[in-house]
Amino acid sequence: MAANQAFYDAFNARDLAAMAELWARQIEVTCIHPHRAMLLGRDEVLRSWRAILGHPEQPKIVFAAEPPRIFGDVGVVSGREVVAAVPIAATNIYVREDGEWRMIHHHGSPVIQVQDHAGQ
Amino acid sequence: MAANQAFYDAFNARDLAAMAELWARQIEVTCIHPHRAMLLGRDEVLRSWRAILGHPEQPKIVFAAEPPRIFGDVGVVSGREVVAAVPIAATNIYVREDGEWRMIHHHGSPVIQVQDHAGQ
Repeated sequence: MAANQAFYDAFNARDLAAMAELWARQIEVTCIHPHRAMLLGRDEVLRSWRAILGHPEQPKIVFAAEPPRIFGDVGVVSGREVVAAVPIAATNIYVREDGEWRMIHHHGSPVIQVQDHAGQ
Repeated sequence: MAANQAFYDAFNARDLAAMAELWARQIEVTCIHPHRAMLLGRDEVLRSWRAILGHPEQPKIVFAAEPPRIFGDVGVVSGREVVAAVPIAATNIYVREDGEWRMIHHHGSPVIQVQDHAGQ
């Protein structure tokens, strides 16, 4: 899914303009960064990306997605990111707005490896 | 949104049958529990709920949602859970399947309070 690739490309290029371009304008957007509370609205969300992408030592991200689930004008992409060797479980939601797939929600959360009783 | 309330009711009642009822059957489902990797498919997801709901000391959950975003047959509910005094940021996605709103994705991640330079 091109929109999802554009998101990770913008992240890795530290390209705030490209990141701003791919988030929805009319539809309310939300974003949950690892270990942080939910951000609500385009201003708050883009302010967080400005801080993240503006960091000169921000590590690159690698993403492995499950096949997207598309329901009409909504696409859900979930999968596994790796940032600086930390695995992150991610949920990305896109909605078609003015004919373009735009992001309305990103949720990333660190995966802490735990041995359970089954040894997994 | 009734389906979202049913999810938290099933959690708090530790009612696995009600939990199984509200997850989609035909559509692929996924679930990301706090600090865990993504679970894929109804069997894996329900197995995790069996373990969680079967735990006699599982604390109750409180949920405060933002207004749901509805796009045709898809509903996105994001908000803040509190479990045993731990704040959790949550993303819930529902899709209408056979005329019923059914959950296709849940993502919960702990919020670690951090003082940033702005004192927030």
